[in-house]
Amino acid sequence: MEHPTAIDPREHAVYAPDKMGKSTLFRSERVMVGLNAFEPGQSHALHAHEDMDKVYHVVEGRGVFLLEGREVPMQAGSLLVAPAGEPHGIRNPGPGRLLVLAVLAPAPR
Amino acid sequence: MEHPTAIDPREHAVYAPDKMGKSTLFRSERVMVGLNAFEPGQSHALHAHEDMDKVYHVVEGRGVFLLEGREVPMQAGSLLVAPAGEPHGIRNPGPGRLLVLAVLAPAPR
Repeated sequence: MEHPTAIDPREHAVYAPDKMGKSTLFRSERVMVGLNAFEPGQSHALHAHEDMDKVYHVVEGRGVFLLEGREVPMQAGSLLVAPAGEPHGIRNPGPGRLLVLAVLAPAPR
Repeated sequence: MEHPTAIDPREHAVYAPDKMGKSTLFRSERVMVGLNAFEPGQSHALHAHEDMDKVYHVVEGRGVFLLEGREVPMQAGSLLVAPAGEPHGIRNPGPGRLLVLAVLAPAPR
């Protein structure tokens, strides 16, 4: 994809039947911009990145952010920043699909 | 603001009568996550960052992305990545307000 260009993230979502689907919209050494796509029942388990900050911005659907010891409801428009070292994850209890923009800075190697 | 926490960016928008309003949601050396808020008629002129990539994600409203030699319509949900060195800007022709998430990686000094 050529940048800069205006895109509708929903047109770039990749859903997978067996686990969370991933697609990459942009990548440099400074940042990775991608989409995490969840069918009902799928999740991305609690994890942390030691040297990267992550920004989640919900594109469509509903679900929950997984944080240490708690779950936080989210919906289209919700934003969450997980600073480096902070555990985070996502779960889609359904019934609809859930699409989340995920920005990692710097990009993973 | 404590992170990680789920937020509604609209609750953190700062509009200003004289020029684009800015607010910061998160900042580290790796990334700055902020909001650009445009009243009708306001704009952020075409500019470029030599060493930072920028991600725009429209939260609400409509407007245009300013790119070199062209303008691209955008609306809630539209996403644009301006890689380092690529001129970009935003204009809100109105009639409604326009709120855009802006992520810069790495953060400006």
